[in-house]
Amino acid sequence: MWSQNALMSTAPSTSYYRKMSVSRLTPEDLLAARERIKSKVVQTPVMRSDALDKRLGVSIYFKCEQLQVTGSFKYRGASHAVSLLDDECLGVATHSSGNHGAALARAACDRGIPAQVVMPEGAVEFKVEAVKAEGGHVHFCAPTQAAREAGLQGWVDKGFEAVPPYDDDRIIAGQGSCALELIEQVPDLDCIFAPVGGGGLLAGTALAAAGFSRPITVIGAEPAGADDAQRSLELGHRVQNHQPDTIADGLRALIGERNLGLIQQHVSGIITVTEGEIIDAMALIWTELKQVVEPSGSVALAALIRALNDQPEAWSGKNIGLVLSGGNLDVSRLTDAWRQ
Amino acid sequence: MWSQNALMSTAPSTSYYRKMSVSRLTPEDLLAARERIKSKVVQTPVMRSDALDKRLGVSIYFKCEQLQVTGSFKYRGASHAVSLLDDECLGVATHSSGNHGAALARAACDRGIPAQVVMPEGAVEFKVEAVKAEGGHVHFCAPTQAAREAGLQGWVDKGFEAVPPYDDDRIIAGQGSCALELIEQVPDLDCIFAPVGGGGLLAGTALAAAGFSRPITVIGAEPAGADDAQRSLELGHRVQNHQPDTIADGLRALIGERNLGLIQQHVSGIITVTEGEIIDAMALIWTELKQVVEPSGSVALAALIRALNDQPEAWSGKNIGLVLSGGNLDVSRLTDAWRQ
Repeated sequence: MWSQNALMSTAPSTSYYRKMSVSRLTPEDLLAARERIKSKVVQTPVMRSDALDKRLGVSIYFKCEQLQVTGSFKYRGASHAVSLLDDECLGVATHSSGNHGAALARAACDRGIPAQVVMPEGAVEFKVEAVKAEGGHVHFCAPTQAAREAGLQGWVDKGFEAVPPYDDDRIIAGQGSCALELIEQVPDLDCIFAPVGGGGLLAGTALAAAGFSRPITVIGAEPAGADDAQRSLELGHRVQNHQPDTIADGLRALIGERNLGLIQQHVSGIITVTEGEIIDAMALIWTELKQVVEPSGSVALAALIRALNDQPEAWSGKNIGLVLSGGNLDVSRLTDAWRQ
Repeated sequence: MWSQNALMSTAPSTSYYRKMSVSRLTPEDLLAARERIKSKVVQTPVMRSDALDKRLGVSIYFKCEQLQVTGSFKYRGASHAVSLLDDECLGVATHSSGNHGAALARAACDRGIPAQVVMPEGAVEFKVEAVKAEGGHVHFCAPTQAAREAGLQGWVDKGFEAVPPYDDDRIIAGQGSCALELIEQVPDLDCIFAPVGGGGLLAGTALAAAGFSRPITVIGAEPAGADDAQRSLELGHRVQNHQPDTIADGLRALIGERNLGLIQQHVSGIITVTEGEIIDAMALIWTELKQVVEPSGSVALAALIRALNDQPEAWSGKNIGLVLSGGNLDVSRLTDAWRQ
């Protein structure tokens, strides 16, 4: 437990970065992580919408990670992992088809070391360009998990440090800084809704909330078409069959092992939503907040609206933090509709 | 002239609100207007984009009026006009097919009086709904200028106060508050680019800049398909033929009489841009700033890019303020592209 004015632990605690599938992270580790990346990350603003609050009967505090460096929360974890590297480190490597690749490329670039990003053939051109724009070296592989891991292993064998996208304590600790900020920005928060894909953000959020003495409920939000986190939570272990089918491309990953462990401990529940609910929520965010948020970033609002429909008495009147996790999408696909 | 710390004039100066086609507004009137609306309007943030600055070789300060009440700068002028009404005023009336109608409805609602908004049949459904959502009473008329004015006159005859969208000193003075804020927020600004339709925003911007002792160039930005302001400036009087054809629906109005007068006095030039340039600029804003800005709100960036292409030596390295004037568009038209 810590108070909001707790002293930050300044001595780097690296013991929890050992390769194990159960996380040993504590709330104190998140404070230390936040301190390490403070000068790099943007303390993103919290936005409000009177119109949405009135319409939904709650007070929503939107945490704007679309305004984070590289346009998503992923930069928090990536820059934290990079901050812990030895000075002798040759560079970093990962496999990614999305925001983590760009975030890691930027974090590596900030430190002056190369980032090797293995991407599956057929990855969205827009996301490939984003990795390159941040200075990342893109290497294509066959679009299978085995090929991605083999591609990454090749770089690890050459001495590059692997930085996985979510199943990694350095990453989870970094992502937790988002909720630490939010809870400080909104002192009377009752609850936080955050999306879950691999589970880095949700696990970090839950651990951050658990560190405060006042109770803050944490709810995961997941597309019904990629509901492995919810099913894993019900089963008590990671599901084996996972064939994601959702427009929320940032949430297609299978829940990570240590992420699931933290979520089991600290998250109150996961709400799944349909594709239509995701698009409706995205349109609301664009219209009312004037913020470009990608489908994955809109899932938390979709889940809140579903919760308010299903159990209005449980949620009405609450102060709800809601993580808009990113804003990276190929807008040319949309603006082309304007061209004749 | 005033310094940034000039005392605000607190005594309302209403002499300039007489119905005449030449504006008598002074920079001091803008300060007084700003003081009157200070508690109503949002002091909108200024956003930056490292990526855009690097790409274009300038420092751009985006003034985010898409985050203003009702989603556009129009609320500044509307709330100022309403602040000057007598307590006995029955209500306000205007004709509008766009943001001014919604802004006036909101300003009237804030003061507890009704707003009658005459809208042409065939007006965009999205904009009609926006006026209603702000509490405005919508009255349809034939889609001609004569019918719109007749519709408005009917309400004036019933005792409602007419509040025109731009050719009105109360409105121009209110819109000027946007540039007053921007110049205070960015102390070393060299230049401001602002879009021009009827000319309320551009005239207010130019008058605001003229009030500062340090020189700040003001440039208007106009769609080539609605270039009446540029042509009027060249001719020395308002053009007679005006058949606007542009996606920038907020800039289709004919330049106002008194607006043109102020622009002739204080604006350095008007740059026109193609429809393609407007869409390209809009896509850049959505991608790099993650802000939903409508086509009209993207015209200033399009003009800056054109200026940098045509005369790089004149603009490179400058500190440029750029007004993102609004973010109201029917996003369902865009998000529907995601639905299968």
